[in-house]
Amino acid sequence: MTRTVIESKSKTVVIGFDEPFCVIGERINPTGRKKLAAELEAGDFSTVERDVAEQVACGAMVLDVNSGAVFTNRMATDPRYADNNFVEPPLMRDLVTRIQGWTDVPLCIDSSVPGALEAGLEAAEGRPLLNSVTGEEERLERVLPLVRKYNVPVVAISNDDTGISEDPDVRFAVAKKIVERAADFGIPAHDIVVDPLVMPVGAMATAGRQVFALVRRLRDELGVNTTCGASNISFGLPHRHGINAAFLPMAIAAGMTSAIMNPVRAQEMEAIRAANFLMDHDPNGMAWIGFSRVVEAMAGGATFAEASAAAQAAGGRSGRGGEGRRRRG
Amino acid sequence: MTRTVIESKSKTVVIGFDEPFCVIGERINPTGRKKLAAELEAGDFSTVERDVAEQVACGAMVLDVNSGAVFTNRMATDPRYADNNFVEPPLMRDLVTRIQGWTDVPLCIDSSVPGALEAGLEAAEGRPLLNSVTGEEERLERVLPLVRKYNVPVVAISNDDTGISEDPDVRFAVAKKIVERAADFGIPAHDIVVDPLVMPVGAMATAGRQVFALVRRLRDELGVNTTCGASNISFGLPHRHGINAAFLPMAIAAGMTSAIMNPVRAQEMEAIRAANFLMDHDPNGMAWIGFSRVVEAMAGGATFAEASAAAQAAGGRSGRGGEGRRRRG
Repeated sequence: MTRTVIESKSKTVVIGFDEPFCVIGERINPTGRKKLAAELEAGDFSTVERDVAEQVACGAMVLDVNSGAVFTNRMATDPRYADNNFVEPPLMRDLVTRIQGWTDVPLCIDSSVPGALEAGLEAAEGRPLLNSVTGEEERLERVLPLVRKYNVPVVAISNDDTGISEDPDVRFAVAKKIVERAADFGIPAHDIVVDPLVMPVGAMATAGRQVFALVRRLRDELGVNTTCGASNISFGLPHRHGINAAFLPMAIAAGMTSAIMNPVRAQEMEAIRAANFLMDHDPNGMAWIGFSRVVEAMAGGATFAEASAAAQAAGGRSGRGGEGRRRRG
Repeated sequence: MTRTVIESKSKTVVIGFDEPFCVIGERINPTGRKKLAAELEAGDFSTVERDVAEQVACGAMVLDVNSGAVFTNRMATDPRYADNNFVEPPLMRDLVTRIQGWTDVPLCIDSSVPGALEAGLEAAEGRPLLNSVTGEEERLERVLPLVRKYNVPVVAISNDDTGISEDPDVRFAVAKKIVERAADFGIPAHDIVVDPLVMPVGAMATAGRQVFALVRRLRDELGVNTTCGASNISFGLPHRHGINAAFLPMAIAAGMTSAIMNPVRAQEMEAIRAANFLMDHDPNGMAWIGFSRVVEAMAGGATFAEASAAAQAAGGRSGRGGEGRRRRG
């Protein structure tokens, strides 16, 4: 049985075929958020603190921490800031240290800069998830030794030096290569979480079917857990949350075990909680029943984050009971 | 390729592995609706007329017509009305005739009374779906000759004289028996639409997984289309539409090709339309884009039925284009 164990100092999360779907909160990421990048440059971590609290309240089980900020102002006076190898390692260290002070939810250290990955691994307590390695040769040679040295699980993205293939067989082959290369480093398959890469269904009509088939193959043939950037499926489409909310249960039924996504979206989180119940990963439907109270509070005018935080505060163990029991190591 | 062809006088619907999910509207059913039964007893068909219009506007591709009314008042003065073999055949004939005058959507003739099934078959133009046969010996011997005589497809429910088994292997075996018995009558497997029976997940934790596995087997081993009473999965649970809206995409991903359900529910219909897109059964996402306009209208305060009817009226072909093109024979 494939179990990927992720830990903070005091909390264990298991990604696995017989576990509730693991929601990895994506919001702490300055790459697509200019305002957040500017705040970080000014040493203002208040948005990060709020994003931590909201994501955890809404049901994130792991928090992705991406350090990909561009420090525009500092760059103007100090050219070293034009290099992310210079910017990201201290920023990642700072983010990880602060976030660990705010929450006991395990972290996912996310950067394209190997130095930032290592800074995050040094600062993290427990056993964070590393995000990511790809099939690119340079990346394999830089990241796998870190995975080995720190004994952590890693997200493996199915692209290589030739780019992202539209052929799912090629993406499967890249994933297989990464798993095999990792084995050469002594890294077991259960510590590899493959991202088979989700294409937008608006651009590629077979995108959904490709992912469902790939996830099943990755599970049956390689025995690995899987993840994805879920919202990519609906890129460019109207009412995209409706697409996401159908895609996630379908992916879960195919065997997908985690996603990197925005947990502060009620429609997607509802779909995941229902899918957990339908996969027999919510004993007695306790998590569903707790979630239905959050839905009731939203009908009364509260936002999803507010209603979730209130449920959590108000002896909210009942609202997250089913998962809570399993989540602890 | 398994194709179950259902027709009205002028319209063809195909249930199939490569077709959009077939939504069979369940609302014309006095069994669970006392008010409707009383109206029918009084000869008032206005609710039926409205249910026809609303279901079709919201996206029903076939309309189930159930004649299971109890005529309480007439029963008091005429004991023959205590017998549904007396009540249902003329009622079914009347319902089918009237409904065909209001819509060109094909019908599903639904009764536990063989005489009502035959009355519906006599009245129906085109090639209605018959609902249903079971694995019960008496039912097989009564219904299969009708299926043969009228050359129509039939819903086959996976229970037999021993009742409904909680063991999915037994339910599969019952389905197999029905398909084999039908073959003895010269009825091909593509004219059998198996209902593997959906249990409430609140009562049986494995209910979802059972159905997903059964649907896959029915498709792979027997080559048949499948249907279900979708809302049964959420029976007794809070916020049950959220469960239904995850169940349907998961069942579709497993290979389910139709459901008997309430189409006047935006959440479930949204999930189905998104799932069609994700299964590559919505060319260029045209049906999804049309549906997203209905969602916008609902945000402005319209009910789903109102917004759907308005979209249909306003040159609404665009809103249902993807399906419309495929639906026509």
